[in-house]
Amino acid sequence: MGKGTLYIVSAPSGAGKSSLISAMLETSPTYAMKVSVSHTTRTIRPGEQDGVHYHFVEKQHFETLIARGEFLEYAEVFGNYYGTSRVWIEENLNKGIDVFLDIDWQGGRQIRQLMPSAKSVFILPPSKDELERRLNARGQDSEEVIAKRMAEAKSEISHYTEYDYVIVNDDFDNALIDFKAILRAERLKQDKQTDKHKSMLSALLAE
Amino acid sequence: MGKGTLYIVSAPSGAGKSSLISAMLETSPTYAMKVSVSHTTRTIRPGEQDGVHYHFVEKQHFETLIARGEFLEYAEVFGNYYGTSRVWIEENLNKGIDVFLDIDWQGGRQIRQLMPSAKSVFILPPSKDELERRLNARGQDSEEVIAKRMAEAKSEISHYTEYDYVIVNDDFDNALIDFKAILRAERLKQDKQTDKHKSMLSALLAE
Repeated sequence: MGKGTLYIVSAPSGAGKSSLISAMLETSPTYAMKVSVSHTTRTIRPGEQDGVHYHFVEKQHFETLIARGEFLEYAEVFGNYYGTSRVWIEENLNKGIDVFLDIDWQGGRQIRQLMPSAKSVFILPPSKDELERRLNARGQDSEEVIAKRMAEAKSEISHYTEYDYVIVNDDFDNALIDFKAILRAERLKQDKQTDKHKSMLSALLAE
Repeated sequence: MGKGTLYIVSAPSGAGKSSLISAMLETSPTYAMKVSVSHTTRTIRPGEQDGVHYHFVEKQHFETLIARGEFLEYAEVFGNYYGTSRVWIEENLNKGIDVFLDIDWQGGRQIRQLMPSAKSVFILPPSKDELERRLNARGQDSEEVIAKRMAEAKSEISHYTEYDYVIVNDDFDNALIDFKAILRAERLKQDKQTDKHKSMLSALLAE
């Protein structure tokens, strides 16, 4: 069995990143894949599950993990810690599981430096108008918040060139096929195949 | 429109390379792709078509092309020239067409140096027994020739680590899906997408 790949996935809000990741997980029974679950010290909320929405840990434990260098990145927000565990990710990669890290360009840049074997995917909306339409269709933001999100979107999009792959989410089904093709192709990379087919290759090359 | 990709495709005889390439061309109406057609100075044979099986040219013309540096590689065999035209390949890549170059590891190594943007795919049989079975099933070779092909196969396979991607052709349909995933994923690489979606990207990043 070969090692999994860490995927840094970024997109402006409204490009369809979460829907694409969810659809990937639901429709790909063949492949082992997971979304990276962050650690946090904040209190668990009704409806949340430990290990699903977050790994909920005590502050003291979180600080021990920091001291041990177990986080790829972490931040303190309103007195609570949030972090991405390198150990959790590597355990999964070693099991042959692909891990998705849903993160913005700044976090992506940090991860890329710490885990150079990670692959990165940027998801683009087909146009500003369509992005605005999608943000409005959610019905959860005021006009002011949407204007702010549109400005943030432009800033996020300006970093798309730092990514290995770019998916244009115009048609959702097509974008999902794109995403799947990337995962399938990455598993066909020579080093992954060498790992996966060790005994077959020894037999082919034996005297 | 983005530029096409040159694919160096190698495999031991009997791994199914030609069948996979033919199936790709037949079943991919969405993508523009072609097999590289070599130039030769040998006489056209009954049933062959100029521009399909070879580009048939006069010896003097071939030598002019050599002098102009138009070949990625060429060889003289029994007094006839055979060569791979860089110009023909680049014309097609510039039209956004993916070009397959069916070549052995030695040719592949030369091409990789001359066209570093080429991607390479190695096709493996699942086992020696299966390879031998396929060579026998063709019914065109003597036992002696098959023994020779098996030895050559091992030598060819020993170079698979020089390739970007490895496809194990155990199940043909599965191998074809693998091949298509590689092409689709390569078209999603950031530089290709930047080329393809120039105006969309300018609009997304405009004030």
